[in-house]
Amino acid sequence: MDAVWLEDQILSLRQDVPIPVPGTGEALIQVRLAGICSTDLELVRGYYPFAGIPGHEFVGSVVSSPGDPSWMDKRVVGEINIACGECETCRSGLRRHCERRKALGIHDWNGAFADYLVLPLDNLHLVPEGLPDEMAVFTEPLSAAGEILEQVDIRTTDRVLVIGAGRLGQLVAMVLRQTGCQLEVLTRYPKQQELLARLDIQTLVEDSLASRKYDLIIEATGSPDGFELASKLIKPRGVIILKSTYKGDAKVNFSSTVVNEVSLIGSRCGPFAPALKLISEGRINPRTLIDATYPLAQGIAAFEHASRPGVLKVLLKPAGR
Amino acid sequence: MDAVWLEDQILSLRQDVPIPVPGTGEALIQVRLAGICSTDLELVRGYYPFAGIPGHEFVGSVVSSPGDPSWMDKRVVGEINIACGECETCRSGLRRHCERRKALGIHDWNGAFADYLVLPLDNLHLVPEGLPDEMAVFTEPLSAAGEILEQVDIRTTDRVLVIGAGRLGQLVAMVLRQTGCQLEVLTRYPKQQELLARLDIQTLVEDSLASRKYDLIIEATGSPDGFELASKLIKPRGVIILKSTYKGDAKVNFSSTVVNEVSLIGSRCGPFAPALKLISEGRINPRTLIDATYPLAQGIAAFEHASRPGVLKVLLKPAGR
Repeated sequence: MDAVWLEDQILSLRQDVPIPVPGTGEALIQVRLAGICSTDLELVRGYYPFAGIPGHEFVGSVVSSPGDPSWMDKRVVGEINIACGECETCRSGLRRHCERRKALGIHDWNGAFADYLVLPLDNLHLVPEGLPDEMAVFTEPLSAAGEILEQVDIRTTDRVLVIGAGRLGQLVAMVLRQTGCQLEVLTRYPKQQELLARLDIQTLVEDSLASRKYDLIIEATGSPDGFELASKLIKPRGVIILKSTYKGDAKVNFSSTVVNEVSLIGSRCGPFAPALKLISEGRINPRTLIDATYPLAQGIAAFEHASRPGVLKVLLKPAGR
Repeated sequence: MDAVWLEDQILSLRQDVPIPVPGTGEALIQVRLAGICSTDLELVRGYYPFAGIPGHEFVGSVVSSPGDPSWMDKRVVGEINIACGECETCRSGLRRHCERRKALGIHDWNGAFADYLVLPLDNLHLVPEGLPDEMAVFTEPLSAAGEILEQVDIRTTDRVLVIGAGRLGQLVAMVLRQTGCQLEVLTRYPKQQELLARLDIQTLVEDSLASRKYDLIIEATGSPDGFELASKLIKPRGVIILKSTYKGDAKVNFSSTVVNEVSLIGSRCGPFAPALKLISEGRINPRTLIDATYPLAQGIAAFEHASRPGVLKVLLKPAGR
């Protein structure tokens, strides 16, 4: 099969990758559409030493599910953490944090930038009929955005700032808008502003920021710089949600965190069901974030496109679907 | 009056400092005993550009309280944040985080390493009769340790680690011991271990640490290095309480915070009433931490003593008490 391959921080297109073979309790899934995420770009930059097929945002069709034919031909999205189910963390209910987990297209498990992928059936969610692939492919990043709501209570009186209006920041803003909070988004590019303005979400630029004003800040810049800014803008006893994973260190002095008794909360993957619900009920329309769709065979060009400043979602479409 | 004076990171002893004059709603307090805290040592290192009399841990006697004679001759301890009472933060109930606050011996308000100090009456707490000065002087740092209990719920099944068994770490361990949690303290010096062993608190050294084992970690090393260690030891979804303020930056990559969805909570001053209660009921005996008591006139030597590695509490006693 065709696949984008990452090794030693070099991307290549391979046409001779064997189609993976699902075991019992797993499904072989034909990829219909896949999305490039900032984490994929960071993998190429060496954030994490992954070798194999990247890609963890996808929608696909089950073409084989040994031992459980009920999944055959179903259109699915899939959670990316492959848990052992047996370690202390799994047994405590935190399967997404399994000590021995693999992660689709990120750690020890081939991902979605290919004609086919394999996932455990436990990871799959049915895509509601009528929901276009171009919407369903956003389920994974939208669930990561929605994880914030699992971690903090947000009141309508809360002043909330999203720093970074890129791929993830836009989805975060869409999710937070549902809460009715006093939402503002720090933007850098006119297109980011336009997309948010269409949703009546207040945008601002860095010059207009006031210090110590926000109850909650979501740091979604994807770079080490966002934290310092968030630290200056957060109220005493406020909460900063950290969403960025990146290569390299930030220089941090925690003294202001201590003095202002700020909480910093790391936030990664979230539950799929609420995300699918938000999209299928039409409350969130992530399709507006699509900048381009490339055939899988042009995967390298797609990565190049996705890495340009200000570009939002770039999708990959395998030839076979 | 005599006072220790800090200016341009240089400590000196001054004998001609005017006795401060309290305004209405304030008290003039004759200092009976004062404690040197790591923050005082960091001020000398330039953590914060304070010029004046340092010192914020004290017990004293009210010798003048214009407009409210009921405080006269009372033995008191005092909260260190002097709030405006009018800003948005004060009105929201967070007086310790007042936007315009001054802080005893730390910011724009002369402190306790002197014969006398002034504080607003609102800041004062009566010391119960019979409670020795050598106990009461620990109220402020013990309340800072107790702030942790205001910020997180601790269960008896929680595995809790205190990193740093110095002045503050010891008090934190004493407070956390009250919760019945599974407590361990990382120590560096035999004396730290002995003190904790007397309380039946489990100690360990860095070689014996296991990764990702703790539900809650208190970083109380007072240095930038503690965070990295805490990051390696905390469980997924665990909580790290940050207690250290210091000069200089730590190099931090938040990716593991994000991936493990760890919460980092800054923690500073806490409520005095529970701390006074713990000491006066005899549930905590901080006197064991006293390494030396110096006359105020030997304040410079006392600072030198307090800055030696492994030294715990050094007290200053004005001549007049």
